[in-house]
Amino acid sequence: MKTPIDSGLIAEANQQASADLQADYDYLGALLSRRGVDIDVVTERARQFVVAVPSWGTGTGGTRFARFPGPGEPRNIFEKLEDCAVIQQLVRCTPRVSPHFPWDRVDDFSELRQHADALGLGFDAVNSNTFQDQPGQPLSYKYGSLSHTDPAVRDQAVAHNLECIEWGQILGAQALTVWVGDGSNFPGQSHFQRQLERYLESTRAIYDALPDAWQMFLEHKMFEPAFYSTVIQDWGTSVLCATELGEKARCLVDLGHHAPNVNIEMIVSRLIQFHKLAGFHFNDSKYGDDDLDSGSIHPYQQFLVFNELVDAEHRGQTGFSPAYMLDQSHNVTDPIESLMNSAEEVQRSYVKALLVDREALYTHQDGNDAMLATNTLKAAFNLDVSPILARARVLEGGAAQPIDVYRASGYRAEVDKRRPSSGQSGSGIV
Amino acid sequence: MKTPIDSGLIAEANQQASADLQADYDYLGALLSRRGVDIDVVTERARQFVVAVPSWGTGTGGTRFARFPGPGEPRNIFEKLEDCAVIQQLVRCTPRVSPHFPWDRVDDFSELRQHADALGLGFDAVNSNTFQDQPGQPLSYKYGSLSHTDPAVRDQAVAHNLECIEWGQILGAQALTVWVGDGSNFPGQSHFQRQLERYLESTRAIYDALPDAWQMFLEHKMFEPAFYSTVIQDWGTSVLCATELGEKARCLVDLGHHAPNVNIEMIVSRLIQFHKLAGFHFNDSKYGDDDLDSGSIHPYQQFLVFNELVDAEHRGQTGFSPAYMLDQSHNVTDPIESLMNSAEEVQRSYVKALLVDREALYTHQDGNDAMLATNTLKAAFNLDVSPILARARVLEGGAAQPIDVYRASGYRAEVDKRRPSSGQSGSGIV
Amino acid sequence: MKTPIDSGLIAEANQQASADLQADYDYLGALLSRRGVDIDVVTERARQFVVAVPSWGTGTGGTRFARFPGPGEPRNIFEKLEDCAVIQQLVRCTPRVSPHFPWDRVDDFSELRQHADALGLGFDAVNSNTFQDQPGQPLSYKYGSLSHTDPAVRDQAVAHNLECIEWGQILGAQALTVWVGDGSNFPGQSHFQRQLERYLESTRAIYDALPDAWQMFLEHKMFEPAFYSTVIQDWGTSVLCATELGEKARCLVDLGHHAPNVNIEMIVSRLIQFHKLAGFHFNDSKYGDDDLDSGSIHPYQQFLVFNELVDAEHRGQTGFSPAYMLDQSHNVTDPIESLMNSAEEVQRSYVKALLVDREALYTHQDGNDAMLATNTLKAAFNLDVSPILARARVLEGGAAQPIDVYRASGYRAEVDKRRPSSGQSGSGIV
Amino acid sequence: MKTPIDSGLIAEANQQASADLQADYDYLGALLSRRGVDIDVVTERARQFVVAVPSWGTGTGGTRFARFPGPGEPRNIFEKLEDCAVIQQLVRCTPRVSPHFPWDRVDDFSELRQHADALGLGFDAVNSNTFQDQPGQPLSYKYGSLSHTDPAVRDQAVAHNLECIEWGQILGAQALTVWVGDGSNFPGQSHFQRQLERYLESTRAIYDALPDAWQMFLEHKMFEPAFYSTVIQDWGTSVLCATELGEKARCLVDLGHHAPNVNIEMIVSRLIQFHKLAGFHFNDSKYGDDDLDSGSIHPYQQFLVFNELVDAEHRGQTGFSPAYMLDQSHNVTDPIESLMNSAEEVQRSYVKALLVDREALYTHQDGNDAMLATNTLKAAFNLDVSPILARARVLEGGAAQPIDVYRASGYRAEVDKRRPSSGQSGSGIV
Repeated sequence: MKTPIDSGLIAEANQQASADLQADYDYLGALLSRRGVDIDVVTERARQFVVAVPSWGTGTGGTRFARFPGPGEPRNIFEKLEDCAVIQQLVRCTPRVSPHFPWDRVDDFSELRQHADALGLGFDAVNSNTFQDQPGQPLSYKYGSLSHTDPAVRDQAVAHNLECIEWGQILGAQALTVWVGDGSNFPGQSHFQRQLERYLESTRAIYDALPDAWQMFLEHKMFEPAFYSTVIQDWGTSVLCATELGEKARCLVDLGHHAPNVNIEMIVSRLIQFHKLAGFHFNDSKYGDDDLDSGSIHPYQQFLVFNELVDAEHRGQTGFSPAYMLDQSHNVTDPIESLMNSAEEVQRSYVKALLVDREALYTHQDGNDAMLATNTLKAAFNLDVSPILARARVLEGGAAQPIDVYRASGYRAEVDKRRPSSGQSGSGIV
Repeated sequence: MKTPIDSGLIAEANQQASADLQADYDYLGALLSRRGVDIDVVTERARQFVVAVPSWGTGTGGTRFARFPGPGEPRNIFEKLEDCAVIQQLVRCTPRVSPHFPWDRVDDFSELRQHADALGLGFDAVNSNTFQDQPGQPLSYKYGSLSHTDPAVRDQAVAHNLECIEWGQILGAQALTVWVGDGSNFPGQSHFQRQLERYLESTRAIYDALPDAWQMFLEHKMFEPAFYSTVIQDWGTSVLCATELGEKARCLVDLGHHAPNVNIEMIVSRLIQFHKLAGFHFNDSKYGDDDLDSGSIHPYQQFLVFNELVDAEHRGQTGFSPAYMLDQSHNVTDPIESLMNSAEEVQRSYVKALLVDREALYTHQDGNDAMLATNTLKAAFNLDVSPILARARVLEGGAAQPIDVYRASGYRAEVDKRRPSSGQSGSGIV
Repeated sequence: MKTPIDSGLIAEANQQASADLQADYDYLGALLSRRGVDIDVVTERARQFVVAVPSWGTGTGGTRFARFPGPGEPRNIFEKLEDCAVIQQLVRCTPRVSPHFPWDRVDDFSELRQHADALGLGFDAVNSNTFQDQPGQPLSYKYGSLSHTDPAVRDQAVAHNLECIEWGQILGAQALTVWVGDGSNFPGQSHFQRQLERYLESTRAIYDALPDAWQMFLEHKMFEPAFYSTVIQDWGTSVLCATELGEKARCLVDLGHHAPNVNIEMIVSRLIQFHKLAGFHFNDSKYGDDDLDSGSIHPYQQFLVFNELVDAEHRGQTGFSPAYMLDQSHNVTDPIESLMNSAEEVQRSYVKALLVDREALYTHQDGNDAMLATNTLKAAFNLDVSPILARARVLEGGAAQPIDVYRASGYRAEVDKRRPSSGQSGSGIV
Repeated sequence: MKTPIDSGLIAEANQQASADLQADYDYLGALLSRRGVDIDVVTERARQFVVAVPSWGTGTGGTRFARFPGPGEPRNIFEKLEDCAVIQQLVRCTPRVSPHFPWDRVDDFSELRQHADALGLGFDAVNSNTFQDQPGQPLSYKYGSLSHTDPAVRDQAVAHNLECIEWGQILGAQALTVWVGDGSNFPGQSHFQRQLERYLESTRAIYDALPDAWQMFLEHKMFEPAFYSTVIQDWGTSVLCATELGEKARCLVDLGHHAPNVNIEMIVSRLIQFHKLAGFHFNDSKYGDDDLDSGSIHPYQQFLVFNELVDAEHRGQTGFSPAYMLDQSHNVTDPIESLMNSAEEVQRSYVKALLVDREALYTHQDGNDAMLATNTLKAAFNLDVSPILARARVLEGGAAQPIDVYRASGYRAEVDKRRPSSGQSGSGIV
């Protein structure tokens, strides 16, 4: 397996940190032991935790106002995979990459899969793109794609999704994520009901083409790029459409796609309850779909989301198997650093949620003891679980301190030399 | 029929206004005629428009900080009906009153119905109340009602809903509106899924007791009185629950119960499309569930809601028969004036929506002509339809200028004399 | 004067509409006369109303996801002016264009001014741009401009503002609008206080270079392109900075730059009261800084803003002379149509605000008669003032129905032939 | 000094916890030592931390829908003080109580002060109340108080504030907090500018009566009880008014009084920078002014607020001396438990903010290293500082585990016996 970062560098850094790490881990183990928790069991579950990395996240993102590229940006899916391999080598919980088509289209997908294999990477859900016009594309998506008033445009958009499935099968993926920019900018521009009927007709055609083991992830979003209405505007429309389509259609939750103040963890619970949770696009935001690094703004909210997820696991909720993926726009950081840091932050929320004393929580809930119930969550959230995360990484062959090692490796400067800027995007903008 | 306001006063005021009103109506008729619209057909539909009045709206509302009562507040359902009769006498589109129990509980509901009949009033959807504790109530709703962890509390809440149905049958109502304050104030306080399962079990018991012609209206609300989570927090949960319960369960839309920025008219369209729109609690708001007078803040939004409703009528959408009701808190106005004014504002939105050139709109929508599509809506919204509203009222025996006549009547001063303040609420606070 | 649209076409269209227009105007005149208002006085004020057009608004806008260009987009400031001349020829209330540098930079600004003169156009406030990197720019604005931690970057940004003033002087402008993208994406990234101190130091240098008659407009914005904090995040910071700088610094209100639910008309009142209102960037929005067409989403809010403005005029508020400018992104419409329509919608709000019976309003306010006070505003808002707007345009030589005439003229198809797409932006994205 | 809780109980509980606490403290000390921090210095500062308790917070709060009282509610200021003494005895960082008039009015304020002295309590900022009508009050505040259109009402409201100062002087307070419910519910109801002018005139009269050492705290709020506009709607208006009034007037920040998504820590920074930060009303919220327990929803935001406060201390910002107070509504918890827990949560944020490596942070800020800057904050936030908080309490004579000891003491059951329910409020509703 090719490993972009010198493994000696990792080993050396881990060695230097090992005494402190051992002390921290031992202390945390003793503290958890008082609570009746075996730290090694938790560490084992942390090691099994996986969150996928978006191929487009390896490039610098931007806004409608500007994009400020960074050095050494990947110019194609092969270079993106190289960056993803760095991430996985150091954090060891991101073994899969989620590709975006046609950005990541290649002539030979078998070759691409072999390339990924050689880097120790697999492929997660494939993403179709009918929110942009590509050079040479016969019909424009300016006024919609899967829900366009013109059946020829809808057919073109459906066909693209079908080719995404085909490509994804070669890559070993098992899900198609469908997010469209369809909507309207002005009252009256679109007929809400007819637009959704057209969307359902188109997605039905895609759904019917899903291979047996595949799922279709419907991603809702409140606004942007459409500014008055969006065809799948919220989880309500999403769950109704997923129900219409059938068992293989589920609802994807992107943390930034909701109205202000909405209780997202409750939506997660509802989707779990009604067997329609597909999974997540993790990121964080303060205002809208800011696509900031996961957990950077509302870490407690991210923990509360994982509290629902771990609770469903704990209860053995039937049909529960959500997919986790990062979906961020890295405008002012090195994308590799942001993705490593975010993977750790998501994993941190997961581990903290594992530490919630669920039986105590249920007792307080049944007794309407709001104070002790909420303090039970805080008792887990307040713990510093960094030692578990570091230990899990080290045991898996990664770095105790991924960003330190990454910086020490000089990787960014090195790729900057051999990746002359294309000035092109195709990455970083979602 | 007893009419609280001297009908001579109305006739005289209408007479004085008649020349101007005729001129206004004639001009508007000519203008609409140019657009191919027969004004009299529109006026006829305006005459048939009905919106129910909430019994509790006749009292002065308040906030958690204070309530500042006004003079002559009604002290019981009989006095509330008297006020509602004033409203109906003057605006003529509010023939039904929606009662709230136990606030409007009486010993003899047949007598109450006769009393209403004598005033020319009927009864609309009945509302149960399990968000307050009543004197002598065995078990408290402090920690919930239909979704309470204690089955005895749930049973008590179910039983109250059953008695509401019973009383409503005597009164001639055909729907039960269920809104609960159940939720939680802190993360962890309630188990989201178990709480909703309990809610569904309780509402199933109520649903099963519905008489044949009845419907059950589920009312969702984002927050307040619970401040972290609410059992039916949005239309998504509402529509899932209504679907679980069956055909007679539908979703009620209160305009103030949504997250900031949410596109409410789109939710209305979705509920229509999926045959689950129960109807409305009309009011307006700038910040939260402000319960301000309908159309006072966002008149264009209210028009856009009616654009969806009239469009569904126009397309002959199957199963479409929404119930309209005002639900406001009148903190700084005379409740009778606010209710009259609001009924007119709701009717105004309806009439404007009738004037949308739907075939032109469809053409622009199909052609993705956003500019002409949105201007087609504005061409209707910008019209001053006051002459149609006044004409409809006058033809029905009401007042061209309801507030002027009401003030001239001295009704408020008169009831103030014979209704010594109880210092009690039981009205005005929702 | 060069007029891009055949004036015969306008005359003919106006002639065809004249009978209906006269009837509408006469009726409205009679109605207003009953209210003691002379319609011709109102029309005269409508004729004097002016709102500037943004040069960049003539191109198709986009989002971070995509831009879908339209046909015949202007490729430089000369072609933008040509489009602006079409707008002014038809609506006659947009005689000035607001340029954006360096997008609109030319070698010879005197020639540019003459070119504009020949089209009957002048120049409004000039806009500097330090939120993008330009090709060949020595230092990047990736991490800020006027508030950058590096003094060399701040100097570069200041120098650009100084050249904008210089160029603006040649063009006859009298104000500099300063909006920066400076801020941060993560907690801790920027030191709030030090960042603002640097901003104040930089703007002080610009302020000191303002010519005598000039003003400096500070534009605040809550978020985007920065997603955690913005250096001038709201009107509070804006007014404090404008006060620090001096009398010539004032606060610009963009309708889309506020937090959800904020009462914008109240901010306008506060800025008037404290003598710090610079003027407006008009647009509309449902979610964030959507930059939709003015009045397309919240027409009543736009009216309420003008209610404050007309009230200040009415009271003879000292130092009151706000600048009006459109600032929109036209993603799905023909930009010329959107700008014409929006100019009319802004003018519509102004005219309706003129029709508010202010003395009656004051009486109801003093008497705490909330019902009649708010109905006094509605009595003006509900009027269809289209006849006044059409009359004002016709009297000024414009078109009664601007969009109809524009479409009939074939202008867009004609310029599409002679403006081969550059694929470049430099317009439409703000 | 009278201590409501048996001190033996505290000592015993602390003794039982002492081994674990020592181990936890030692480990944290070692960890901090690696970071160059002396834990005992931090503990010392934690011991000096003070947050005031609101007298009204000792009662059960409610909403406009209902209030569900708990057992043993205090019926007057003497009983409230008794509850506050429990809080202070156990948590040892709440030595002062903030009274609310006329709720806490007594005949003999000297006696009240002695009563407090005997309990080891002092008095913090006094709060006036002109948002409710009191029995026997000559003029109503229904339409406003300090900004009422009627000068007689304004005079009454001013006089009440003056008596609050007088009473506060006897009690040893040094600040007056002025929050008013004045505003409007409908567009047009109030003239924004005139209303604020009246407010300024009234507050000027109060300001002029401030004793030498006193400050006046202006508290802004976006909405509620007024639902369209509020006289001091945001920090912008607040800071302008405080500037108008003079140096002794400053702006109080209540965490729940802002528009959705607003960056509150940035407002705190701005007020510090412009020398106008009065202090805080701490609480937390998810939707509006929910008045939930501090740190219960957005603990990271509370930390970021304290990051600004500690940074100002660190930099020796001139004139920086904010007042800290809890302001919560306890609807579903025992108020004593919520206040103890919240005091600890506020203290927790303070201590974490002390642990931020400020020099490293400045370096990353200056170098635009967003990743390491934000991780520097997280490195402090992620630490579990519970051992420092427990140690500080124990050293001060309080309880390591306050809620456990409180429950074990049986205090609530005991007072329930000797405080028969008054059914009255006067507490708990703000």
